[in-house]
Formats: sequence, C-alpha cells, structure tokens
Amino acid sequence: MLGEFDLIERFLKPARVSAAHSGVALGAGDDATVLTPEPGHQLVVSVDTSLVDVHFPADAPAEAIGHRALAVALSDLAAMGARSRWCLMALSQRHDAFADEAAATTWYADFSRGFHALCEAFDTVLAGGDVTAGALGISVTVMGETPSGRALTRAGARPGDVIAVTGALGGGAGGLHLWQRGERDMTHPLVKRYLLPTPRLEAGLRLRGLASAAIDVSDGLLADLGHLRRASGVGAELDEAALPPAAGLLEALGEREAVAAMLGGGDDYELLVTLAPDNVAKARQALAKCDVALTVIGRCSEQPGVRGVEAAREGWQHFQGERP
Amino acid sequence: MLGEFDLIERFLKPARVSAAHSGVALGAGDDATVLTPEPGHQLVVSVDTSLVDVHFPADAPAEAIGHRALAVALSDLAAMGARSRWCLMALSQRHDAFADEAAATTWYADFSRGFHALCEAFDTVLAGGDVTAGALGISVTVMGETPSGRALTRAGARPGDVIAVTGALGGGAGGLHLWQRGERDMTHPLVKRYLLPTPRLEAGLRLRGLASAAIDVSDGLLADLGHLRRASGVGAELDEAALPPAAGLLEALGEREAVAAMLGGGDDYELLVTLAPDNVAKARQALAKCDVALTVIGRCSEQPGVRGVEAAREGWQHFQGERP
Repeated sequence: MLGEFDLIERFLKPARVSAAHSGVALGAGDDATVLTPEPGHQLVVSVDTSLVDVHFPADAPAEAIGHRALAVALSDLAAMGARSRWCLMALSQRHDAFADEAAATTWYADFSRGFHALCEAFDTVLAGGDVTAGALGISVTVMGETPSGRALTRAGARPGDVIAVTGALGGGAGGLHLWQRGERDMTHPLVKRYLLPTPRLEAGLRLRGLASAAIDVSDGLLADLGHLRRASGVGAELDEAALPPAAGLLEALGEREAVAAMLGGGDDYELLVTLAPDNVAKARQALAKCDVALTVIGRCSEQPGVRGVEAAREGWQHFQGERP
Repeated sequence: MLGEFDLIERFLKPARVSAAHSGVALGAGDDATVLTPEPGHQLVVSVDTSLVDVHFPADAPAEAIGHRALAVALSDLAAMGARSRWCLMALSQRHDAFADEAAATTWYADFSRGFHALCEAFDTVLAGGDVTAGALGISVTVMGETPSGRALTRAGARPGDVIAVTGALGGGAGGLHLWQRGERDMTHPLVKRYLLPTPRLEAGLRLRGLASAAIDVSDGLLADLGHLRRASGVGAELDEAALPPAAGLLEALGEREAVAAMLGGGDDYELLVTLAPDNVAKARQALAKCDVALTVIGRCSEQPGVRGVEAAREGWQHFQGERP
C-alpha cells in the first residue's frame, strides 16, 4: 500500500510549486513552508475539521470530500472579508480503507482533484500537509489576508442595521435529507449545495466596507445569528417569510420542514451580514457583479433576543450532533 | 456532556486574549483570527497530527498528550530557525470517552494545561481551534517567523560540511519501549523524552546563520538524514561510535538495540544540522548559552549514500507504522 511519502509526493505535489506571485518562498518538502505576506496586510487564519460520518457521509464521492473540506474552511475567510492565499491539509485515512492499490490511487486522485480545483478557483495554494493513519478526517488550515484593520467581524452590528443573507438557505440540510433517502445524483441542486458548497469569498471581499458585521451560516441561521448578536450586543427582528429557500427545498421537505431547515439546518455556507440601511442597495449592486443575491431578512434591535420566528431553537452543535 | 462551545469557552479561552505584543489583533471567537505579521519577515508554517494509538499511547497522561502534540509541531519551526508566534489546534475527542462530566473536565483541564504551558514557554499564542467528535487526535498548525530570506532549509549542505546533532538520540524509541513494558514514571528520563519532548526552538534560532542545512529528527536519524541528503545533493560519512545516546538508553535497551534506536527510532525532536567546519566551535558556544550540546557525528561527502553505519535502514514511516 502507498506510504506517507508516496502520497505526499503524488497527490500533494502541487504544493511544491513555488511561484513568485503565490507568495510561497519555499514550498512543501522541507520541515515547514515559508510564505511571504503582503506588506500592510494582516493575516486571517482559521482551521476546520471534516470527519467521516460526522460532517460528510462515508459514501460521498472522494472529489466532493476534498472540495467540501476546503470549502467549509474557506467560508470562514469569506465571513471576514479576507482574500484567501494559502492552506495546509492534515489528512487521516485508514490503512485498510481500500481493497488494493488501484482503488487507493483512484480515491486519492479524486480527492486531490476536488481539493485542488477549489484551490485554483480561489487562488489558494496548498502550502503544506501531513498524512496519518486513522478514520477519514481532514483538518484544513486556511490563511488569508486583509488590508490592516479592515477585516469584517461579528461585532459591528448596530440597532437599526438591516440583516441580510447571501444566496439561499436550507440547501445543506435539504441535501443531507435527500442523501439519507438514497439520492446520489451529484447534479441535484440540493445535493450539490450539501456536498459541493461554494464559499462566498468574492461576496465577502465586496461586502468589506459595506457590511457592519458578518458571519457564515454553518451551524444554522439562528445559531449563527446568535453568535453575531452576542458579539455585537444587539437583538434581532426576523421576517420568516423573507427567508430565501434553496432551489428544490420546498419540494423536497414541504413548507414546515423547509422553514426549519432554513432556520436551523446549517451547512449553508452563505454569509449572514448586517448593514446600515443606506448600504443595502450598494451591497446588492456589488454582489450582482459576482452573481450573488442578497436578501433582507430582518433588522437589528436594541431589545435582546430574536423575534419574528416561531421556534427559538438555536440550531445544532456539531460536537453533540450525530449526523449524517 | 460538554458541548463544543463550552469546551472552546472553557479550555481554549486563553486564545481570546488579545495582547498587543502577541500580534493577535482579533482573537478566537470570530469566524477567524486576525494576526499582525512582523514587517520584513516571512511566515514559516507547518501542520502535524498526533493520533491516539499511532503517535501516542491511549493511556498517556492528558497533560503529556497536550504538550506532545504541540511540541512535535514546534519542532518543525525549530528546524527552520524560526521564532514561534502562533498556533491553531484542531481537536477530535469521542463523545463517550469519559464516564461523566467530572472525568471529562479533568481530562480537558489537564490536556489544556500541558498545551498552554508549552505555548507560554515559547511565546506562542493559541490563536484558534476547532473541536469535533471522533477518535482522539490533535492537528496543530504552527506559525512562526524569520527575517526574510533567513530560514534554515534542508538544502544547503555541501561536501565537507560537518554533520552534527543537538542533545541526545534514541530517547523517543527508548521511552516508547519502556512505556510498552509498563513503565509509568513520568520523571524517568526516557519516558520524559518520549512523551514530553522539548522542541529545540532556541537552538534553531541560534543556529541560523551558522548551519548550512537543518532538519528535525522525527522519522529517525537515518531517514531524516536521507531527506537532508537528497535536498542538498550530498552523501554522508557517519561515525556510529559518536552518536550521543539519551540518558538511560544503554541500560534500557542494551548496546545493539540502543544503536538501532539512535539510527532509526525517531521521535527524538533533536536538530540534525550541517555546518562548515569553521562554524562548529561558534555553534557550540551559541548552543551552550541555552544549555544544548552539539555533537559531531559525521561529514558530508560528494559520494551519494551513507557510509559508516551497518544497517542502511532508513527508518520508519509513520503512515505504515503500527506503534505503539
């Protein structure tokens, strides 16, 4: 079976490419990678782990697993308004996961293709990694940059600010629901939303300077709004009817469950932002350039808590969750 | 049982402390952490995963597990001559790992104490993390800095350069051997070397500008020398009798096994360096200031390969290994 060094050599190889514009001064293959940060900028860093049977199903296509592990990490940079630059991957995979070397090679090639394609789409260089033997899991560290002092945070929302969300909600939960019922068509819009989410990096960059606060929708809209509310010290008045459902969600789940998925499902990787009312039109125009919709779903209030939604359920905690 | 947010709140809390001199502009608690790099410096980054039953035994003290997971990652920065600045931790732990909440709290408090004590010892700020449910594993991303263009690499060794190693060898394998035989005294020098290694960060800083190439001894002396040789395009003439054994190694393993442990055991986290002969005395003086010995164990040659040791075994690959 392939050893650690073979794997790194064959599938993490693009990491070794040292390109002047990529800021990689010394690529993978030494004890560590040397990176050249942009003067006048700050680093924005985050780590996200994706585990089999916790964050993605064991029978997901390898290409989607690679894509998704990076996408959920990049989503955090999007929420900070950062430009993504580099990432590091710590991969665990079982010795006995594959019947033979051919099966292993196919899996790693597919996994790596999904990961690298997303790297390329967002100018992100895989700058290092580690491969160990264990249950399938991928920890991705992402490193981005913003001009100093310009990062979007969760803490800037003011009473009176509008609450808005990019794209559509409920797709993560809807796709998971379909997958669990046996749907395996990767082109189905909900399955795609669940297994191949697109991090809203370009939207995040365009919202910098316009949004007063931002967070990505990973735990569920209400839970993530709760993080933002607490960091900003505001309450929220939501308009449940305004929530934008992912394509196919109502048909797949019915209206009642669709609303629950939009409020609490999580895994949508959209941006939840607050904006001064004057900035809404500007933000919509800016996002139209990258073909991302922005939907107003409520308003920040001085009164703490959330009003306008029936259930006050605050979403789902990954660590206690048992899905899929 | 404790949820993800509780754990982060209680045990990763020091990460939120934002201190001007630490370069943490915005601590954990947002979507990502914002860091301020030092002007004129490059970033040196690496990720290392430590898995239960692969990299450390399941019955190791939690404090040692926390210490060791960070130490092995910092060792890579030491080998680059970098100053350590920040780290990120992705932690997996099973839901059902503990009998009750008191046991869980004790474990996390111990684990976190071991991790944070090492952070403090090396001015490293835990700048973010992620907690997931799964077999115990810790992926640590370390981020350090060097003045631009000054990182130590594996690639600078020249024929005629002296080969030297810091501290002592074989302690990792010796300690593992004792642990497997039931030794649980954490003050035993070999057990300490195995479970509580000290990353040679200060030695790495002091060797910058003196060493021509460097690597840390993690896979085993011969394996790591192989990486250095290939990167530098040199061969090596080793003096087996000069290898410095860890305290207690000969008594624990006998001479024959002790030599094998020094050559192939790995997990020593010493620095293996090459130096122009003129620099050896200077390097020894510099390292004496941080109380680290430097032992000459051979010389680089033009002729490829390694001479001077009986076994040409190139050490052990973690991914294929089955220990402990």
